[in-house]
Amino acid sequence: MTDSTPASAAPASLPTTPAPSASDDTPPTILDLPIGLDATGQRQEFDSLGTVMVPADHYWGAQTQRSLEHFNIGNDRMPKEVYHAYGYVKKAAAIVNTKAGRMPAWKGELIEKVADEVISGALDSEFPLYVWQTGSGTQSNMNVNEVVSNRCIQLVGGTLGAQEPIHPNDHVNMGQSSNDTFPTAMHIAAYTMTTNKTLPALGRLKAALESKSQQWADVVKIGRTHLEDATPLTVGQEWSGYAAAVGDAIEELEHATSLLLKVAMGGTAVGTGLNAPAGFGDEVAAVIAQLTGFPFETAPNKFAAQGTLDRMVRAHAGLKTTAVTLFKIANDMRWLGSGPRTGLMELTFPSNEPGSSIMPGKVNPTQAEAMLMVCIDVMSADVAVQMGGAEGNFELNAFRPVLIAHYLHSALILADMCDHFREFMIEGASLNEDKLKENIENSLMMVTALSPVIGYDNAAHIAEYAQANGLTLKKAALDKGVSEELFDKVVVPIDMTHPGSADIATPAKS
Amino acid sequence: MTDSTPASAAPASLPTTPAPSASDDTPPTILDLPIGLDATGQRQEFDSLGTVMVPADHYWGAQTQRSLEHFNIGNDRMPKEVYHAYGYVKKAAAIVNTKAGRMPAWKGELIEKVADEVISGALDSEFPLYVWQTGSGTQSNMNVNEVVSNRCIQLVGGTLGAQEPIHPNDHVNMGQSSNDTFPTAMHIAAYTMTTNKTLPALGRLKAALESKSQQWADVVKIGRTHLEDATPLTVGQEWSGYAAAVGDAIEELEHATSLLLKVAMGGTAVGTGLNAPAGFGDEVAAVIAQLTGFPFETAPNKFAAQGTLDRMVRAHAGLKTTAVTLFKIANDMRWLGSGPRTGLMELTFPSNEPGSSIMPGKVNPTQAEAMLMVCIDVMSADVAVQMGGAEGNFELNAFRPVLIAHYLHSALILADMCDHFREFMIEGASLNEDKLKENIENSLMMVTALSPVIGYDNAAHIAEYAQANGLTLKKAALDKGVSEELFDKVVVPIDMTHPGSADIATPAKS
Amino acid sequence: MTDSTPASAAPASLPTTPAPSASDDTPPTILDLPIGLDATGQRQEFDSLGTVMVPADHYWGAQTQRSLEHFNIGNDRMPKEVYHAYGYVKKAAAIVNTKAGRMPAWKGELIEKVADEVISGALDSEFPLYVWQTGSGTQSNMNVNEVVSNRCIQLVGGTLGAQEPIHPNDHVNMGQSSNDTFPTAMHIAAYTMTTNKTLPALGRLKAALESKSQQWADVVKIGRTHLEDATPLTVGQEWSGYAAAVGDAIEELEHATSLLLKVAMGGTAVGTGLNAPAGFGDEVAAVIAQLTGFPFETAPNKFAAQGTLDRMVRAHAGLKTTAVTLFKIANDMRWLGSGPRTGLMELTFPSNEPGSSIMPGKVNPTQAEAMLMVCIDVMSADVAVQMGGAEGNFELNAFRPVLIAHYLHSALILADMCDHFREFMIEGASLNEDKLKENIENSLMMVTALSPVIGYDNAAHIAEYAQANGLTLKKAALDKGVSEELFDKVVVPIDMTHPGSADIATPAKS
Amino acid sequence: MTDSTPASAAPASLPTTPAPSASDDTPPTILDLPIGLDATGQRQEFDSLGTVMVPADHYWGAQTQRSLEHFNIGNDRMPKEVYHAYGYVKKAAAIVNTKAGRMPAWKGELIEKVADEVISGALDSEFPLYVWQTGSGTQSNMNVNEVVSNRCIQLVGGTLGAQEPIHPNDHVNMGQSSNDTFPTAMHIAAYTMTTNKTLPALGRLKAALESKSQQWADVVKIGRTHLEDATPLTVGQEWSGYAAAVGDAIEELEHATSLLLKVAMGGTAVGTGLNAPAGFGDEVAAVIAQLTGFPFETAPNKFAAQGTLDRMVRAHAGLKTTAVTLFKIANDMRWLGSGPRTGLMELTFPSNEPGSSIMPGKVNPTQAEAMLMVCIDVMSADVAVQMGGAEGNFELNAFRPVLIAHYLHSALILADMCDHFREFMIEGASLNEDKLKENIENSLMMVTALSPVIGYDNAAHIAEYAQANGLTLKKAALDKGVSEELFDKVVVPIDMTHPGSADIATPAKS
Repeated sequence: MTDSTPASAAPASLPTTPAPSASDDTPPTILDLPIGLDATGQRQEFDSLGTVMVPADHYWGAQTQRSLEHFNIGNDRMPKEVYHAYGYVKKAAAIVNTKAGRMPAWKGELIEKVADEVISGALDSEFPLYVWQTGSGTQSNMNVNEVVSNRCIQLVGGTLGAQEPIHPNDHVNMGQSSNDTFPTAMHIAAYTMTTNKTLPALGRLKAALESKSQQWADVVKIGRTHLEDATPLTVGQEWSGYAAAVGDAIEELEHATSLLLKVAMGGTAVGTGLNAPAGFGDEVAAVIAQLTGFPFETAPNKFAAQGTLDRMVRAHAGLKTTAVTLFKIANDMRWLGSGPRTGLMELTFPSNEPGSSIMPGKVNPTQAEAMLMVCIDVMSADVAVQMGGAEGNFELNAFRPVLIAHYLHSALILADMCDHFREFMIEGASLNEDKLKENIENSLMMVTALSPVIGYDNAAHIAEYAQANGLTLKKAALDKGVSEELFDKVVVPIDMTHPGSADIATPAKS
Repeated sequence: MTDSTPASAAPASLPTTPAPSASDDTPPTILDLPIGLDATGQRQEFDSLGTVMVPADHYWGAQTQRSLEHFNIGNDRMPKEVYHAYGYVKKAAAIVNTKAGRMPAWKGELIEKVADEVISGALDSEFPLYVWQTGSGTQSNMNVNEVVSNRCIQLVGGTLGAQEPIHPNDHVNMGQSSNDTFPTAMHIAAYTMTTNKTLPALGRLKAALESKSQQWADVVKIGRTHLEDATPLTVGQEWSGYAAAVGDAIEELEHATSLLLKVAMGGTAVGTGLNAPAGFGDEVAAVIAQLTGFPFETAPNKFAAQGTLDRMVRAHAGLKTTAVTLFKIANDMRWLGSGPRTGLMELTFPSNEPGSSIMPGKVNPTQAEAMLMVCIDVMSADVAVQMGGAEGNFELNAFRPVLIAHYLHSALILADMCDHFREFMIEGASLNEDKLKENIENSLMMVTALSPVIGYDNAAHIAEYAQANGLTLKKAALDKGVSEELFDKVVVPIDMTHPGSADIATPAKS
Repeated sequence: MTDSTPASAAPASLPTTPAPSASDDTPPTILDLPIGLDATGQRQEFDSLGTVMVPADHYWGAQTQRSLEHFNIGNDRMPKEVYHAYGYVKKAAAIVNTKAGRMPAWKGELIEKVADEVISGALDSEFPLYVWQTGSGTQSNMNVNEVVSNRCIQLVGGTLGAQEPIHPNDHVNMGQSSNDTFPTAMHIAAYTMTTNKTLPALGRLKAALESKSQQWADVVKIGRTHLEDATPLTVGQEWSGYAAAVGDAIEELEHATSLLLKVAMGGTAVGTGLNAPAGFGDEVAAVIAQLTGFPFETAPNKFAAQGTLDRMVRAHAGLKTTAVTLFKIANDMRWLGSGPRTGLMELTFPSNEPGSSIMPGKVNPTQAEAMLMVCIDVMSADVAVQMGGAEGNFELNAFRPVLIAHYLHSALILADMCDHFREFMIEGASLNEDKLKENIENSLMMVTALSPVIGYDNAAHIAEYAQANGLTLKKAALDKGVSEELFDKVVVPIDMTHPGSADIATPAKS
Repeated sequence: MTDSTPASAAPASLPTTPAPSASDDTPPTILDLPIGLDATGQRQEFDSLGTVMVPADHYWGAQTQRSLEHFNIGNDRMPKEVYHAYGYVKKAAAIVNTKAGRMPAWKGELIEKVADEVISGALDSEFPLYVWQTGSGTQSNMNVNEVVSNRCIQLVGGTLGAQEPIHPNDHVNMGQSSNDTFPTAMHIAAYTMTTNKTLPALGRLKAALESKSQQWADVVKIGRTHLEDATPLTVGQEWSGYAAAVGDAIEELEHATSLLLKVAMGGTAVGTGLNAPAGFGDEVAAVIAQLTGFPFETAPNKFAAQGTLDRMVRAHAGLKTTAVTLFKIANDMRWLGSGPRTGLMELTFPSNEPGSSIMPGKVNPTQAEAMLMVCIDVMSADVAVQMGGAEGNFELNAFRPVLIAHYLHSALILADMCDHFREFMIEGASLNEDKLKENIENSLMMVTALSPVIGYDNAAHIAEYAQANGLTLKKAALDKGVSEELFDKVVVPIDMTHPGSADIATPAKS
């Protein structure tokens, strides 16, 4: 559909007056039209390379269409959240430009109105571009500019594709470049999703883990190190470790995403702010902060903000390290629930679905498995993020689309997964207390409590003697000369779950 | 919608005769009904855990519905190619089972007919499950079993959800387990996509590179090592290197995917083949080979085939190393085309779209950028694949969904990207011959040709003298005592693009 | 050399009194003996598994020797910094134990004295174990315990290998487990190296970049986005971006490593603190803080501190994201310095060495190349760290050695590399001002300054017209109807390097 | 020590005759001197940048010294295997050059003699350079050239540092460049280590696994999928899967490393072969093949061979996928051996060392842990390899040192680890047959054998009824109406370990 002959709409020679028309003085009426184009076939649009035919029932223009044709690669579309975030950028820029008198008020208000439609998701179907496009995100920025332009034109009864009275570049993009707006939209989208979805889901998971930890605070179980029997702890202690680990992850993720609150706006093409008025970046960031309710500010150095994606890389590292934490917890869970008759059998989880197409009655730790896969996905995404982050050149890092796509994907699947894991696995977990008790009774590692009293080497020999002869620890200890009184005083599982118990047992200071 | 009370359809006590009904003797009429269910609201389905309400306009049953409710995580759906591949598995099993008399012929033929619908994609909308599900893929297997069962039931005028006369497990899944069918479907899907899409796209790219290589076989250009000026070569030679590298990648990818031709079928639950007849795996693999036209065979060791995903890991490594190759080529291209006035400026690529929302007239190497991002994505996917591959436990690797999702994604975006890169960047590339010539004239590295004649150290001093004083190499050489005759004889760019030219210049053997 | 028959030194039946000898009341004389054992051949040592012969000229005991024989894998030794950190752990534990009266003062002081020798590195040759050992680091802990024990024994004139009067477990390891001491030592070692080496080196690099940024604050150069010519900026601005990026990396690395200040001490075997007195963790951490001068504290949850390595994972993520930052800077540098005659040629770097064995006079950006390789190494190490971090099970993460080895390696090579890159590449960098000027004069992207005045589309046509006809931008602009007065007023490179310049040029608000 | 003033040894103006001296006609006597320089202090050396003082007791020259001073980064030295491989390169080049008359025979023989010393490792201490150096490996090539030159000079009684009669570039490097020799040496080193160490160690491991598989061919055990009880298999079958997986890894690694048999020799600086005689690459490769006994050949396309490291990337992918395989096996082993009283307890491994500094009598699966860490290390190294592999530019990939260092490291630790894992864990493994039997008796998944007879749903209800009421499977089956005769006929564990058993149990074909 692309025709690269020069656009007839573009003048062959220049007007001596600037491009915007003189009719700006008399604002047109804004029509109350619902979103949608009642047209069929194609419509001609143009850009600086010439004219292009686009589907008549869509708002997008020439550059969007070119991108659709040159980059229909796989099925990965630029996430909608990027466009919603772009709505804030365009709205904020229009507010600031209008306030400063660089645009007539009615134009600014019109752009604002349409930007609100973008923010709300009502125009989502107008943003069809692929992740695999120009590395700056320019095509998505132009997609927004074109759609806003044409929707504005529709609302004032103009001609779609005429690029007036609202021009995609001169008005919607006024004072902006893809090079500063796209990373700004990335930061807004990433911060918003993490704050609104991922962190709350992690918080709910932490609360569920804490609740179980309290419920099982006094149930003693065998500890395991190297997968091997170790000294006892309470189930509540074990789960307090899970809750604490998730708590640490939350804290770190909050820190990591706080770095996103600095945005590139105001840097325009290469960070210098060319074609933006002085103070533009600060003002736009302030308006974005007001609109979103999040404390966005202009980035302290625009050359770093546009030449790198370091803040995105650090934010995703926060997701990645969260995945590391969750992997361990989900892995523990599936092992603790393994069985029902030949595994560790400590925990029982809800039977959400039949587990096998061939083995009747089988129930599997499927939520944990899904969590492990999600975590692996997030960890591997971090490699894409670090590689893309490292590959910036000069005034632009041109690996933005792959980074934001991975970021939003990681943040979303972690959020959803935490909720499902919590709801369908953790909240319904119950203890197999008989098994826990049996393990405590059988384990030889209770001998550790004797070690401060009789010495490490003697204690080791008792354990080895018990294991070699299939004895209980007590029998072995008595055989080896430990008095029953001493054994019963020292080897008390619940006393072994906190420090200090050793003190009473240590008669001599040596 | 899930209700876990025991299914009323399931008998409380057992029939002494086996489950399949006695009415098998008189085959029902197969109705000629198009795909689709003309129903609204919900329909009751059941599985071993109880009854579940499902949308009445869909074929899927209880287990699919359970999975949909427990695993709606993010937006990642199990790729359709997995289900198409499953169509072959179900069809082949039905053929083998029927032939051996384990199922009445009409049942087998009915399953075959519906399996063909699955293969064709006509039932795609019936496979809604997410990637993040049980690690064995059981839920997707049951999704297929349930859909085939109900579609068969529809075609004989039965009651949807009654699980007769075609039962999802006892008939559609006969002699099978998710544990052997899912990896079989993975191999079929992965091999097919690579063979039908990725390898041909790579082949077309190689051909385009070779064509340019021949076209520019005699154009001399400056070589660059460490990004620094080096000795000359022809543009054709440089591009022959690209073509050769892609050729090597093709060869290796063919090798890597050939490992997928061994399939797990016949191993059933844990690799032993329990509940499958002897020879079942070989026979089913042979039928799959016949149906697909690809030489699939039963895997030599089922315990390895089901306990690991090693063949998938190796196949994806083939995609990954291909991405490594393509990254270098795309990166070279964008650098060689950098400019138009302050870069390397050797190549000019088509102007597919305006490059900037703020800088008029800018054209960027966007196809190369998209390729670089795609390659990064594939390289990072390899980390997910290796992690998931390593995490198998005992008789099952339960990270199958994340592996197959990544494999098919990598294979697809590489295929599409190669085609776009070729069509929109490589085929329209042209040389800036003035610049190439100017570089050759300016470069000091022509001095290397003098080295065998006057010695490395003397040659180095000439180059340094030229650079320090801004001289041409010839002027510097003559200043330093090289005769013009010698210089003109030895420093001939085109002679420097092949071995052997040094011979004539070496008067003394020392 | 290993003999697993029961050690004769271990009593067959138990004493009713505890192991430590009664002679504790009369402290022995501490001899003033230099480090070193004047012995040849082998010496018998024992542990709970039996006796082992060890080299007589080394202090280590049975368990170290067993590890040496069972784990001599490759050439990777546990980094010395781990042992120096362990010195602090053993010293602090001895201080706390002695103060509380759990050990006679002379024993504590003796252990302290030897711990100081460990800290100083004087005993480095006594710690030969490999990275590839038990996942808990127990073997390295026992190596320390055995060496301290025997060195203490030497200092009181005792019998090496007798394990008295200072027993490796009962005294040197009193109140401790490998499970809490090894991660404590990891944190101390990692924090110390980052704080003492990596962060200062990054700080020096930042200062050098800032200094260049100030030196070249007013030199205008062409910007580049997508590797293509873009609008101008000053060299000082570009380098301010590098300095800011390094500054951000420093800030984040400080944050990430601050997480290491929480240590596991006090958790003993499984996090409960069994066999440690109440408050032991807090007290030991406080002493470690005093000894090291860094504010170490006991970790808030020992189950998380021992069951995970999350803080290490996050700290290394800080190194990794620093590597991402440095990769971009080094990559920019080598490209900006490419040439000398056919590259970008903006910067000149010192000629530290001949660049080629065959091309005389070649100089390459070798420091940048080394930096890129170091950064790749650190980024890949992050994958090991995340995988190891995810693989904890229950009360122990048994992937500690591989994590600490990678952490210290990454921190060290980043530190050294930053210093070399700064000293041998950045500090000696100079500008090729002629080339910078020529680029500005030639570039068409100056047209961007006209865009707010004549509109984006008109500006684009001028640029394209200039490029198609090989014209200067001014000539093209005048041809297309821009007045010379307007051009000269608006297209002023230095005015394009900051925001606000557009204002004056915008006559009409539209 | 570096002094960059022009070397006095380098002539200010050129000789009209070529550099090599005229005294070539009369071969000097080759002295029989052992390796070693009996000198103290420093010696002056020079290169094209000037003079440099080097330690007088070392053979290396100016460029090695410059590299040592500019690149002393961390502790990573270029692996010795690279230099040994370089010995073959230098020897082969000398043979070919001499044979063709490009060098006097005595010079060639002298270089050959010293090259043999390099190959043998006798000159290892003369190769001190770091991994983090120039990306082409030029500094290591020059290190070899300089050491060979000076050792040759020593052997003819010449003056060290005089660069005559054997010049490091003109003679030792004749017809070569770092750009073709370094990747050739990489291939030789990598192929040799893999073939001589890694593959044999894998083969020994496979044999040990097979031996155990045969030994335990008839011992039935419970299978596990999703960590949950599944249908039975024999221990021998399980271990046959391990052996088969290692066998597949061996086959693939052989394939992957066979790609290294194509070497870059003959391409010289940029792949064109400038300054090498025609046929040089083929001839040198043939001699290398003869010397090493491995079928090395010249690479078909030198531009690909020098501009990429694709063959190295593919070879390392072979190591990486091997690590994936080994990770799973080692992980299974440690779980199967977990206990001794509260884990899976199926296997018992040798007690190689005490397992805990605090828990007496503890034994841990330390060899498996070390293997897991080694595998993680190799998998993460693959990320460095892929990143470095992708980063080639134009005629050179300048990430060679980091690739070869990682390759050799991965190949070595895998080799050593396989041997240790085999010797200290696998060979001494024994079965806990009581536990295996008990598991079979307890497991409910035996119900699967009933499924083809009574239907999946009925079988599922029996299993659920048994689990809910703590019954044996048989009791539950009888309660639910299965006849004892049927149960005893169908539910026979050993019959469930192969296909075909279902047939007899299927009375009706339905």
